[in-house]
Amino acid sequence: MIIEQPGCATRATHLDDEVRLTDYLDRHLANSLAAPSGVLAQAASHVLAAPGKLMRPRLLLDACLAAGGDPERALPAAAGTEYGHIASLIHDDIIDGDGERRGQETLHRKYSLPTAILTGDLFIFQTFLSYTHCHERGISAERVLTAINLLSRTCVEVCEGQALEASMAGQLDTPEEAYLQMIRLKSASVCRAASEIGACLAEGPDEFIGALRAYGEHLGMAFQIIDDVLAYDGVPSLLGKPQHSDLANGRVTIPIIYAIDAAGLAGRQQISALFWLARTDPDTSYAQLVKLLVTTHALERALQSAALCIEQAKRQLDYLPSSDARERLRALADLVVTRDH
Amino acid sequence: MIIEQPGCATRATHLDDEVRLTDYLDRHLANSLAAPSGVLAQAASHVLAAPGKLMRPRLLLDACLAAGGDPERALPAAAGTEYGHIASLIHDDIIDGDGERRGQETLHRKYSLPTAILTGDLFIFQTFLSYTHCHERGISAERVLTAINLLSRTCVEVCEGQALEASMAGQLDTPEEAYLQMIRLKSASVCRAASEIGACLAEGPDEFIGALRAYGEHLGMAFQIIDDVLAYDGVPSLLGKPQHSDLANGRVTIPIIYAIDAAGLAGRQQISALFWLARTDPDTSYAQLVKLLVTTHALERALQSAALCIEQAKRQLDYLPSSDARERLRALADLVVTRDH
Repeated sequence: MIIEQPGCATRATHLDDEVRLTDYLDRHLANSLAAPSGVLAQAASHVLAAPGKLMRPRLLLDACLAAGGDPERALPAAAGTEYGHIASLIHDDIIDGDGERRGQETLHRKYSLPTAILTGDLFIFQTFLSYTHCHERGISAERVLTAINLLSRTCVEVCEGQALEASMAGQLDTPEEAYLQMIRLKSASVCRAASEIGACLAEGPDEFIGALRAYGEHLGMAFQIIDDVLAYDGVPSLLGKPQHSDLANGRVTIPIIYAIDAAGLAGRQQISALFWLARTDPDTSYAQLVKLLVTTHALERALQSAALCIEQAKRQLDYLPSSDARERLRALADLVVTRDH
Repeated sequence: MIIEQPGCATRATHLDDEVRLTDYLDRHLANSLAAPSGVLAQAASHVLAAPGKLMRPRLLLDACLAAGGDPERALPAAAGTEYGHIASLIHDDIIDGDGERRGQETLHRKYSLPTAILTGDLFIFQTFLSYTHCHERGISAERVLTAINLLSRTCVEVCEGQALEASMAGQLDTPEEAYLQMIRLKSASVCRAASEIGACLAEGPDEFIGALRAYGEHLGMAFQIIDDVLAYDGVPSLLGKPQHSDLANGRVTIPIIYAIDAAGLAGRQQISALFWLARTDPDTSYAQLVKLLVTTHALERALQSAALCIEQAKRQLDYLPSSDARERLRALADLVVTRDH
């Protein structure tokens, strides 16, 4: 997934960020536990041992820089955002019944359902705890509180988005607008918040915050659409979750919606049959669905939708002063839509 | 449960609190949802329709008053504390596999596991969101941030305590000290935080905060010990959860530890056999265990331990200026240990 490797000019900075972030994530967690050798500490270490792309915390740090702030001060919020992301993955894997994440067993499989629920909760609380530490690093209490308000409102949206997604399972009459609203709540909100919070913690002018908020939302929309495309057109090892997860959970994502739009009633009946087939023969079902998504140009059209979001995201960056961070945000937007394609 | 009804002199105030709190809990939640008719909103309403004793938020408000603060300003934190309590009950019921709470079906039974996990998460985020609103009511951002820091650290402790509790299931060699440490993390921390946060949001002197912190911890220890006694010696409808829950989950609580202490190896073998019997014949197992706890005076001794905690809690109140709120806190301490006995 190219998103891990931005252009050479910015790579050093991102590697530095990665080291600082992973170091902070480990240390902060260990320091905050009363029982650092207990089962929760073990489960949390298991998760942190396979770090993800750190896209959201990096986005927060670059947004902070691009808005004229000091990313060192915002580091606890960046780490907190990653804790929150991890928490949602842990609970999401339970909900989806997935057995693998980032190349290793999911928590509810490796440990137990109770341990997975509690470790998810633990990461949620680490999120908020970590945010409060920005004040010790010199950001005003006012701004940190605004960031926590934004964060908690966003997390409420994510829950609602996840519930909406579950309620849409198998609903092949889901309109594109409903899907877009769902991913806006479930996914785009997180990128929007990371970007907006970075700007907020920079303590810069409101117009920068507004631009970075809009940038993050469009970026997040594109990111989720691409994720939904990769579920049918990606390299399995790069997807982060089992290749058949979307199909097994009857997820009506944008490629499915576009395929039905193109192929009409017959396409809808075929997909309905393939969703049923997936329960007994997921491989055949998956292969036939991919074929349909290709012949109806549904994947292609989804990529175009993502590209449109990316254009809108990049346009927001013009409201910011020129900086390396702004260019990294521009590069990130390009990488989101071009990964693996 | 007498805890609902403090002495006549203070009852009016508490009823007012109850109305204000339940009203705030409903309104704040509804206002914060993007999809107020979605499944999460329904599930959340289901839970809020059976309010608990509101002990923790009332404790927060009285601690605020007793430390010289304005409870109107701290109301969002009081409500937030109740949201957090509700969240932990929802996730706890999944972990314990309990089917009933506060006289109605638990969420994972009535809806589904995914909905219960997400509704628990939703209540966690409402907790933090609600706390941020204290600033709008005039409490300094500094103090609200300190409160959020205390809150999130406490929630981490609760997770660790819950994990510790799960790991102690069926471990009949659990020493009293390990049990006390577990309930300190899992339960007493919440009362300690409610009391300390109330004092913190009063923006009064540090010695009041310290006294109310200690008061809350001792009160919480007593409360949990009494809860563990009521599991074997209470009126089922007042317990809040199924009467056999502790036994079914192999909980080694303080009455069990005292019974083993009194009856030695024979007692331990008998309890071990009763834990096994509970899987097939919970009624007989429960009746025989109660008998053992009575004949070994284990319940009596547990009540004495709780009474000791209450004495320590009340002693802390002497560091506070005289006020109605302080007297309500004193009455609360007495009620915790005398409920149903």
